[in-house]
Amino acid sequence: MLASFFMNEFDIIKQYFTTDSGRKDVVMGPGDDCALLQVPPQTLLAVSTDTLVSGVHFFADMDPVALGHKALAVNLSDLAAMGADPRWVSLALTLPRVDEAWIKGFCAGFFELAEYYNVALVGGDMTRGPLSITVSVKGTLPEGKGLRRSGAKVGDGIYVTGTLGDAALGLKQALGELSVPEPYREFVRNKLEHPHPRILVGQALRDIASSALDISDGLAGDLNHILAASGVRAQLDLESLPLSEAMTASVTQEQAWQLALNGGDDYELCFTVPGVHRGQLETALSHCGVKFTQIGRIGFGEPGLELLNNGKPYSMPLHGWDHFRGAS
Amino acid sequence: MLASFFMNEFDIIKQYFTTDSGRKDVVMGPGDDCALLQVPPQTLLAVSTDTLVSGVHFFADMDPVALGHKALAVNLSDLAAMGADPRWVSLALTLPRVDEAWIKGFCAGFFELAEYYNVALVGGDMTRGPLSITVSVKGTLPEGKGLRRSGAKVGDGIYVTGTLGDAALGLKQALGELSVPEPYREFVRNKLEHPHPRILVGQALRDIASSALDISDGLAGDLNHILAASGVRAQLDLESLPLSEAMTASVTQEQAWQLALNGGDDYELCFTVPGVHRGQLETALSHCGVKFTQIGRIGFGEPGLELLNNGKPYSMPLHGWDHFRGAS
Repeated sequence: MLASFFMNEFDIIKQYFTTDSGRKDVVMGPGDDCALLQVPPQTLLAVSTDTLVSGVHFFADMDPVALGHKALAVNLSDLAAMGADPRWVSLALTLPRVDEAWIKGFCAGFFELAEYYNVALVGGDMTRGPLSITVSVKGTLPEGKGLRRSGAKVGDGIYVTGTLGDAALGLKQALGELSVPEPYREFVRNKLEHPHPRILVGQALRDIASSALDISDGLAGDLNHILAASGVRAQLDLESLPLSEAMTASVTQEQAWQLALNGGDDYELCFTVPGVHRGQLETALSHCGVKFTQIGRIGFGEPGLELLNNGKPYSMPLHGWDHFRGAS
Repeated sequence: MLASFFMNEFDIIKQYFTTDSGRKDVVMGPGDDCALLQVPPQTLLAVSTDTLVSGVHFFADMDPVALGHKALAVNLSDLAAMGADPRWVSLALTLPRVDEAWIKGFCAGFFELAEYYNVALVGGDMTRGPLSITVSVKGTLPEGKGLRRSGAKVGDGIYVTGTLGDAALGLKQALGELSVPEPYREFVRNKLEHPHPRILVGQALRDIASSALDISDGLAGDLNHILAASGVRAQLDLESLPLSEAMTASVTQEQAWQLALNGGDDYELCFTVPGVHRGQLETALSHCGVKFTQIGRIGFGEPGLELLNNGKPYSMPLHGWDHFRGAS
């Protein structure tokens, strides 16, 4: 029924999703039962998968171009956090109906980012159902490298890229929960909808950082994964948290710290660096053109997070984002 | 809100999804930003991704044990169709709520099959939303091998494994659209809910078949993908279509052919074999313990499918299953 109003699945896939990336390591792209890929010798395959669900991870009416970008960006961010080189991506798209304009927009955002990092779409699936997007990125890493969560040691500095909490600020603005001054609204909305995976930073940190991850669920909760995996304790200097002008213009200092620690969707990297590598760090990251800030250090004691305000213990409620409970 | 009634996402992942597969090629399993995997030299990586959506691909109240099995089985079936060796799998599970009994059941079905083929769960995602499951399997294939869709040549025989249409028969029984005699109901339900990926057959066909795919959307539509990719024409002998006792006991011959040609969810392999390899075929597949049947041959002419009934042209409506339109 209504068949004539729809393009069929194969037409759509052919028209919008069959692009030639030109990558020589794609022996077989979309269109057969499997993609066949050539993994270079002396490398490990790095794989990460993330799902974005309408109404949970994004508003149902989100601009499809931004959504296409974000769906790929949050996955590339996981490769960045491991220090891997992105190569290939699979896309499973579930759509309530065939809306060509929407698909065209989604593809524009998705492929713009894919081309920027020379990532080839090698396959996937398109199904009918409630809107959701599962992206599985694949990259490679020289053997013996890899920025794990478990390598932080006592004495290491704790660093983050960029500024924190801006995406959460953008979300609160969109929900009408607070008002961001007009000149900054575009900025925070962009931070929420258009994250930039820190691929170059991750690669540059391969021989420098002792641990790393990307901040997707809020610094406090995510840093705790490093602390638990490494069995170490951290001291955070609240006054060092990198905050944007938009943030300081919109909320109180305490609110800003809350958003920086508990807000989600930053997709900045958090990493630890031993003292001996601090000089290299400066040089390596200056080549990436990405701002980074030391926000604390790894210390002795039970795994856990201590907050300091100008050196004095400071207490604030901390909670990571949990998609089953919300930030409760 | 209600936080205390729920286990959180990390607890669930830890409890049910962190199993040690014992695979030595998993350098880093779930729990970091990426999985890190070792791809052996002189092999290609084979990747396939499929999504199952509640209400589209399965009934919302489907037994979670069967669903866990099926979600992995339909993906492994793609590796089988390429002749690949399964190694790793990522699972993205979107659930409307945390139902531990359901998750436990799903895992039981999923891991039983994963263990059977020694496939390691290496990562994934768990999110809140309308029930859907995206599985991405990864395997390897010796360089230069791979059962593509594009290799069928004039003179090749066309074969299928098992019997066809039983899952579609099971679906019609479940929907009350026809009545399968009682002794066969369990069988057809099992064919619908518990497909067996033909992994061993795919591996055995590596040096024998000229093309292959798995039948997920009905033989006619799927075989057409081989014909289009290979640029060849096929003659199918309707009287050769392998039908189960359940099928012949339940419907007329014409209905049986309809179900065999147009029904979905078979997950049998369809493949072509050149004359010179027919002897090898017999030997190789007898080791797998899987029945196979020649159903036709590749001939001259425009790409397309001709139906013959005892050598005479026969006309029947043919349509592949399209998840956007239904079998319309």
